[in-house]
Amino acid sequence: MVKFKDYCVVDYVEHMGSDIRVDEAARVSTQTMTDPNRLEGIIKFLISNKHASPLEHSIITYKIEAPIFVAREWMRHRTQSFNEESGRYSIIKPICFVPSINRPVVQKGKVGAYFFEPDTKLMADVQDRFYHCYEYVFDAYDDMIASGVAKEVARMILPVGAYTKWFATANLRNWLNFLVLRNDSHAMEEIRLCAKLIEHHLHELFPICMKMWVEAGRPQI
Amino acid sequence: MVKFKDYCVVDYVEHMGSDIRVDEAARVSTQTMTDPNRLEGIIKFLISNKHASPLEHSIITYKIEAPIFVAREWMRHRTQSFNEESGRYSIIKPICFVPSINRPVVQKGKVGAYFFEPDTKLMADVQDRFYHCYEYVFDAYDDMIASGVAKEVARMILPVGAYTKWFATANLRNWLNFLVLRNDSHAMEEIRLCAKLIEHHLHELFPICMKMWVEAGRPQI
Amino acid sequence: MVKFKDYCVVDYVEHMGSDIRVDEAARVSTQTMTDPNRLEGIIKFLISNKHASPLEHSIITYKIEAPIFVAREWMRHRTQSFNEESGRYSIIKPICFVPSINRPVVQKGKVGAYFFEPDTKLMADVQDRFYHCYEYVFDAYDDMIASGVAKEVARMILPVGAYTKWFATANLRNWLNFLVLRNDSHAMEEIRLCAKLIEHHLHELFPICMKMWVEAGRPQI
Amino acid sequence: MVKFKDYCVVDYVEHMGSDIRVDEAARVSTQTMTDPNRLEGIIKFLISNKHASPLEHSIITYKIEAPIFVAREWMRHRTQSFNEESGRYSIIKPICFVPSINRPVVQKGKVGAYFFEPDTKLMADVQDRFYHCYEYVFDAYDDMIASGVAKEVARMILPVGAYTKWFATANLRNWLNFLVLRNDSHAMEEIRLCAKLIEHHLHELFPICMKMWVEAGRPQI
Repeated sequence: MVKFKDYCVVDYVEHMGSDIRVDEAARVSTQTMTDPNRLEGIIKFLISNKHASPLEHSIITYKIEAPIFVAREWMRHRTQSFNEESGRYSIIKPICFVPSINRPVVQKGKVGAYFFEPDTKLMADVQDRFYHCYEYVFDAYDDMIASGVAKEVARMILPVGAYTKWFATANLRNWLNFLVLRNDSHAMEEIRLCAKLIEHHLHELFPICMKMWVEAGRPQI
Repeated sequence: MVKFKDYCVVDYVEHMGSDIRVDEAARVSTQTMTDPNRLEGIIKFLISNKHASPLEHSIITYKIEAPIFVAREWMRHRTQSFNEESGRYSIIKPICFVPSINRPVVQKGKVGAYFFEPDTKLMADVQDRFYHCYEYVFDAYDDMIASGVAKEVARMILPVGAYTKWFATANLRNWLNFLVLRNDSHAMEEIRLCAKLIEHHLHELFPICMKMWVEAGRPQI
Repeated sequence: MVKFKDYCVVDYVEHMGSDIRVDEAARVSTQTMTDPNRLEGIIKFLISNKHASPLEHSIITYKIEAPIFVAREWMRHRTQSFNEESGRYSIIKPICFVPSINRPVVQKGKVGAYFFEPDTKLMADVQDRFYHCYEYVFDAYDDMIASGVAKEVARMILPVGAYTKWFATANLRNWLNFLVLRNDSHAMEEIRLCAKLIEHHLHELFPICMKMWVEAGRPQI
Repeated sequence: MVKFKDYCVVDYVEHMGSDIRVDEAARVSTQTMTDPNRLEGIIKFLISNKHASPLEHSIITYKIEAPIFVAREWMRHRTQSFNEESGRYSIIKPICFVPSINRPVVQKGKVGAYFFEPDTKLMADVQDRFYHCYEYVFDAYDDMIASGVAKEVARMILPVGAYTKWFATANLRNWLNFLVLRNDSHAMEEIRLCAKLIEHHLHELFPICMKMWVEAGRPQI
C-alpha cells in the first residue's frame, strides 16, 4: 500500500556560527573589536554593500523529506553539500506526493509568465489518477524487488513524486541566495514551502542577519 | 505510444582550449615559452604532480539525452554548468528507458560490495513490466495535460526512467574527475556508458592530456 | 633598474559561446527552437528573472598583468580559474606600480564610507617614496638571487606593488558578477580599470547579453 | 620598529560535525541506522571508495596569522571561505616574516624538481637584508600614513613578507584535500607548517576519519 502525503518535512540537524560570528568575521578586515551594541548597524552595512563573505562562516544543515521532483530543483544549488537516499543502495519506500485539493492546478499564461489557479474538481480527478498510477507502479516495483531484480534497475519506473530524503548543508550566504530563488512567487509551490520553513527557522538562529536582510529587500548576495 | 530506448546520447556542442593551451597556462607560472616538442613531458609532469589548474582553461560542452535517473547522478557534480529540459515549462515526451536484455539485472553481494549479473529470462519480465508501467503512466500524463492540468503537476507521476536532455559544461580538469567516478567499474551502467563516450571524445580533443592522464593511471586531480 | 608603470594590461586569450549560445542553452529548458529575431527578448527575460544558468556555457579567458595587490583582490573570486606567475619558480622582474599623479590619494570619511581625493603635491611625494622603496628592495632581491638564495625566500621582501601575470577564466555569468563588484564606484581604482576593460570587451563578444544586462541595471545574477 | 617573526599561528575558531555525523550522513544513502561500533569500518569504506560527500557536513573554521606570501597560496583554495585583514580599511602593523637560521635557503635542481638546503651563513646575510628592507619600507609606509596618504595607496610598497590575518572555513573533505597539497614535501615550508598544525588538530576533532584517511595513504578525495 502506497502512503500518500501532500507536504514536505524540513528538520534542523546542526549549525555553527551566529550573528556575532558574522560580525567577528567582518571585523577581521578592519581589525576592530566586536561591539555587541552595534551588531545591527554592522550587519546592515554588510548586506547593503554586498560584503557577503562574513556570512560564509555560519553553516546550517537540514534534513529534508520531499518528492524527487523537489530534490531535482534543490540539488541544482551547487554551493550546498548533499547526501541523499539512494535507489541503488536501498529499497525505496512507497511514499508518494499527492497535491492537496487546493493546490493551484490550472496553468495559465505563457512561457515566462505562467500563473496557476486552483480548481478543486479538476484536482480531485488528478488525485485519483495519482493514486492509481502510484499504486500500479509500486506494485510492479515491489514484485520486481521480490523476484530478485537489482534495486537500481527496478527503481527506473518509480515516479518523481516518490519521496526521498537528504542532508543539505550550506552557509548562511548561500541559504539566503537559495531563499531568493525558492521562496519567491515564481518558485514551484512544493519547494517554496520548504524554503519558507527554512527562512522561518533562520530567523531563530540568526535574528539580526535575517532582520537586516529582510529590511534590505531580501537581496541576492 | 511510449517510445522505448536502451541507450543514452552524448553530443558534442563546443569547446575551447587544447593541449597547447594547457601547456601555455602552466607556463604562466614559470614565465617560460611553450615548446611544442616538450608538450608530453610538461603535461605528464602536471598530472603526476597534481598541478591541475592549467587544465581549467580548456572547457567542453556536451548535450546529453538520458533518463532522469542518470541526470540525477550527473547533476551532483557541482563543478559543471547545466541547463535541462523542464517539466514545468515543457510537455515531457513519452520516451523511456528500458534496459537491454543483457544488462546485468541480478544484484548480489551486500552494501558496499555489490555486483550484478545478467539474467535474460528475468530481464524479459522486467522489460514487460517496464512497458506496462510506462504506458500506464504516460497515458495518465497525456490525459491530464489534455484536460488542462498544469505541466508541473501532471509530471509528478512520471518515472525517473523518462528521458530528459541537458547541456553540461565543465573544464577538462573537472571532466577528468567526472570520469574517475563515472567511468569506473562501480558506477551505474547507464552513466558509465555516457562517461565512456566522453572519455573517448576527449582523446580526440586533447590527445596528449588524455594519453598522459591514462598513463598516470587515470588519477583524480 | 626597476621599471615603473601606472596601468594594468588585460589581454583577451580565448572564448567560447555567444549570444546565440545563451539563447540555445535557455531553450533546452523549454524545448523550443532558437529564433534569432527574438534574441533580445529572451535574454532580457533571462536576466530580469535571474535565470542565469544559460550564461554559464559561454566562457572567456583573459591574461592580466597587474600588481600583486590587484591579484590579491581578484583571486578572491572563487568561480574563476587561475594560473599565475610564481615567485617560487621564476625570478620576479623588477616592474612596479607607481600611481599616476592624478590618482586620488587622500582618504576621507570613515570605515564603510570612504572616499578619495587627488592631491598632486602629496602624490608627487608618494611617487618619490615609491621609487626609492622599490629600488631599494629590488636591489636586495637581485643581490640575494645572485648569491644563490632560493627564489621563494628572496621574494619575501618584494612589494605587493610588484607586477604579476595570470590567466583568468570564468563564464559570462561569473564575469558579470565580477563586474558588479569590481567596476563599481567603491572598488579600488586599479582593479576597477581592469574591470572596465573587461566590461568593454564583453560588449564586443556578447553584444545582446551585455546590452540587456546594462539595461536591467547591471544586476548581480 | 618592525617586529620580526619566523612562524605562523593557526587558531581554532569553531566547528560542527564529528565522526558520527560523517557516518550519519553516509547512512542517509542506505537508510540504515548508525552503529557506533562500526564507525571505523564505515568511514574506512567511504574514504577508500571516494564516497567523500558525507565529510562535507563537518566544517571547521581557523584563524590564521601568516605572511602575505602564505595567504596568497592559501587563498587559491576556492572551496574555502575567507575574511582577511584589509590594507584598504586598516593600517597594516609592522610585523614581518624573517626565516629562521635553519630554514633551507639554497635552491637546487631545476623547475619541477627543486630541492632546498640550509646554509646558515647565507641565511644570516638574508636575515640582515630582510631586516633592512622591512625597516626601510615600513618607515616609508608610516610616514605616508602620517601625512594623510590613503591606506590603500601607502600599502602598495609593503612586502609580501608582512603578516596578515584571516578566517578560513572549509568542510572536512576540503581540509583533507588542502592537506594533500600543503602538508606535502613539495609544499612551501611556511604553508606546510600551518597545514601540519591543522592536520594535528583535525585528529583531535575527527579521530576516526583522520585515522582512516592516514591509513588509506592520505588520498585526495
